[in-house]
Amino acid sequence: MFAHNLLKTARAKHFNLKSFHTSIVTSFDVELTQVRYSNLKRGKYSSITDKHISFFESILSKSRVLTDAADVESYNVDWLKTVRGASKAVLKPKTTEEVSAILRYCNENVLAVCPQGGNTGLVGGSVPVFDEIVLSTALMNEVISINKTSGVLVCQAGCILENLEAKVAEQGLMMPLDLGAKGSCHIGGNISTNAGGIRLLRYGSLHGSVLGVEAVKADGTVVDCLSTLKKDNTGYHLKHLFLGSEGTLGVVTKAAIQCPPKPQAVNVAFLALDSFENVLATFRLARSCLGEILSSFEFMDCDSLMAAVTRLKLQCPVPEDTPFSLLIETSGGNSEHDEAKLSLFLDEATNKGYINDGTLASEPSRIKNLWDLREGITQSLSCDGYVYKYDISLPIEHFYDIVDIMKERLKGTPYIKCCGYGHVGDGNLHLNITAPSFDRNLLNLIEPFVYEWTSKHRGSVSAEHGIGFKKTGVVHFSKSGEALKLMAQIKAIMDPKGILNPYKVLPGDPH
Amino acid sequence: MFAHNLLKTARAKHFNLKSFHTSIVTSFDVELTQVRYSNLKRGKYSSITDKHISFFESILSKSRVLTDAADVESYNVDWLKTVRGASKAVLKPKTTEEVSAILRYCNENVLAVCPQGGNTGLVGGSVPVFDEIVLSTALMNEVISINKTSGVLVCQAGCILENLEAKVAEQGLMMPLDLGAKGSCHIGGNISTNAGGIRLLRYGSLHGSVLGVEAVKADGTVVDCLSTLKKDNTGYHLKHLFLGSEGTLGVVTKAAIQCPPKPQAVNVAFLALDSFENVLATFRLARSCLGEILSSFEFMDCDSLMAAVTRLKLQCPVPEDTPFSLLIETSGGNSEHDEAKLSLFLDEATNKGYINDGTLASEPSRIKNLWDLREGITQSLSCDGYVYKYDISLPIEHFYDIVDIMKERLKGTPYIKCCGYGHVGDGNLHLNITAPSFDRNLLNLIEPFVYEWTSKHRGSVSAEHGIGFKKTGVVHFSKSGEALKLMAQIKAIMDPKGILNPYKVLPGDPH
Repeated sequence: MFAHNLLKTARAKHFNLKSFHTSIVTSFDVELTQVRYSNLKRGKYSSITDKHISFFESILSKSRVLTDAADVESYNVDWLKTVRGASKAVLKPKTTEEVSAILRYCNENVLAVCPQGGNTGLVGGSVPVFDEIVLSTALMNEVISINKTSGVLVCQAGCILENLEAKVAEQGLMMPLDLGAKGSCHIGGNISTNAGGIRLLRYGSLHGSVLGVEAVKADGTVVDCLSTLKKDNTGYHLKHLFLGSEGTLGVVTKAAIQCPPKPQAVNVAFLALDSFENVLATFRLARSCLGEILSSFEFMDCDSLMAAVTRLKLQCPVPEDTPFSLLIETSGGNSEHDEAKLSLFLDEATNKGYINDGTLASEPSRIKNLWDLREGITQSLSCDGYVYKYDISLPIEHFYDIVDIMKERLKGTPYIKCCGYGHVGDGNLHLNITAPSFDRNLLNLIEPFVYEWTSKHRGSVSAEHGIGFKKTGVVHFSKSGEALKLMAQIKAIMDPKGILNPYKVLPGDPH
Repeated sequence: MFAHNLLKTARAKHFNLKSFHTSIVTSFDVELTQVRYSNLKRGKYSSITDKHISFFESILSKSRVLTDAADVESYNVDWLKTVRGASKAVLKPKTTEEVSAILRYCNENVLAVCPQGGNTGLVGGSVPVFDEIVLSTALMNEVISINKTSGVLVCQAGCILENLEAKVAEQGLMMPLDLGAKGSCHIGGNISTNAGGIRLLRYGSLHGSVLGVEAVKADGTVVDCLSTLKKDNTGYHLKHLFLGSEGTLGVVTKAAIQCPPKPQAVNVAFLALDSFENVLATFRLARSCLGEILSSFEFMDCDSLMAAVTRLKLQCPVPEDTPFSLLIETSGGNSEHDEAKLSLFLDEATNKGYINDGTLASEPSRIKNLWDLREGITQSLSCDGYVYKYDISLPIEHFYDIVDIMKERLKGTPYIKCCGYGHVGDGNLHLNITAPSFDRNLLNLIEPFVYEWTSKHRGSVSAEHGIGFKKTGVVHFSKSGEALKLMAQIKAIMDPKGILNPYKVLPGDPH
């Protein structure tokens, strides 16, 4: 029988991405990117002048053009506090037309632009590198329509994911994606980075659930692919160019998203396991026993879990020395059926010796507590100081090997933790190595080794975080030369002056 | 209570796309496309000579270069017998390297090429218009790997969908797409046309389930995007350019496809309804009662169903004058749970007066009989002579209006049937108008009216069939000017000489 080790005393600790960090390190403490990466050369863009500012003020009004250094600073630094740009202006349009007017002007005047959503990216893609103008979607937060019958949401790019989740829930729907940063991230940023997250296993990637996109190209032309239809085979499927190109081909301004019906019953099991072999065995069993109701299969090793437990002061639902933990979520239309399936699965996993201990939750508050542990890992680890983050896809049989290999390799260095967690169901591992501060020697021990190893095992060097600024030097580990050439050609036709999010995504930068 | 009107005597009638037609009209009876569309001008391509043939024979061997008129003919005509090219050569490569060598040579010699899979397309996209060389994927039919744990299939482009279904079933998996032409269509053609079909409601579009693609560009360069990973955010998501571009940007040579686990329990209900209003009410009820196990929701009106019943000599599972019929399929992991959900749904639909009659099937042979009725409609209608086919997406509230509008509009013309069927769950209607033979006056009454009406209701003028040859003149009803411009730019960088599938997809041809 499965031991129901109830999570009685765990309390909801609501944490917020933005406020979480400010007590530890301020934006001004972060070294400027152009200093840290001193080989990097600024592109031949114009520098912003009062004349430019006046123009922006004429279309946006003064209140939506930030130029005061204190106001601008938070837009210059990523939330991990690892990169820092030197932008002098932040623009806050409210409409597609304003975005179009801004870009047309910037293109004519060769002013570089960094589009920014919720600034929750993990690869430095959403902050300037030098003095690019920040184009923030923060005020583009209108929900345009929700069709209850078709389940299609249409909204502006600056809507916060968690707010959309609440809005569509009123119509019996849910968002097809969910991720730790939901309280801050913008849907436009999610789309531009092709965000993955914890529901991908069940609801698939955004390439499937984003029905339409409206985007503005570098020269200000609006590309209207804002279809709300599930099927539309009329010519090239252009919207996919904007999914995952991280703002280098256009600024996403609106989106149409297929939202699935909100499940009636949600259950979460948090399980303790002895070995990674048992993790895989449990995954195979879950797929066969839980089938269509399996909605998440999340994994964390001991260091990852304990980082969250300690920092968030949450009770640990499994013994504190458990080598591996799983968070398995089911969601379906009938709680009785789902509980029967889950119970059968847990009995079988226990009988086969795959799992040792665990807890079950079906009330929303207790489910949230368990998810907080998983979702709080990223932030908790960053409290150690500097985090070397690797977000890799691997064939499932090699999923955890790299964590042990890196621990061995880093013996004797000043690293604090080397741990792994992530989405087993999607073959996506988050390998995190923490250290008191950024250390070039430590970096050189980790990179390019970790990428070469991933490439050798036919994995992806960026599963869901994207390339951003930090990974442009390693794209070639996962993309062929011909693919990279085609990327450059597409960039050239869509943004010939290269004003959109320069130094990002495309390889070739010297850092 | 729901009436179980058992389908006792229905027999499996296995029909085959290719053989179905030959008794009615031969390929040589079909008017040449260049004659029927006499405004059309041949592009400035070279004409094929003995020297070219010798080169192709040197890389493929003589047996894989067809030049005999009788051998070539079936590759020149679409299976609907509506368009006919005048190609003089068919090439049958077996490997990506051979495809690359052929295209490099054709590009250097400015020879136009028409890539062809199973030639089951419905918009004339897979046959030549003039004398383009046919590049057939028929011999590229190798299954490269099936990973049982991850569910990923890797195969060559010429594998027939039904064969793949059988292969992955051996590993407890299923293909994420299914369509009437499965016995003939090639997976490369499915991908190149972004085929929809009857499982899209549950498993989503190919943009979600195709993990990777290998394709050869016009100049022979191989673009390797054959990732087998569920998540890979390294740069632009190029594979989507090959999905739905109908062979105009490259020839798909291999694909990696995410296959879902094969469901343990499948049930099909075939239901009779009085009004389209009840169809919509039943759809809403099915979504809420059946949730995650709903896998198809197919619709047919009386004329569509009776065409299949009559031509395929199958027993009609509902009264023959039933205005609207639905085929609803559930698939899940537990037959007891699924039957309980289905039973609850049917009781509620009956009690609310949405459905009048129907039959249930859970044995494979009876399920197949019911599906044969739905899948046999397309072919059965074409037995009338010529079919004007419209495959449109519409907001669900306008789904059936156009059928009645067209019936009214065509009164007094020689049309035989005007009927509608399709995928209600995806908002995708197949409007078919049959006539004894092609009639320009009838065509002018239908077009552009039907496209204008669709565009006015914010629908798509080609939901799943694509643009091919027949719809290049109407793409603009569903694509903005900026989108069309971007399409042309992409075509120019990927196929600057325009040798790949000319006269297709891109607007501007005079017909």
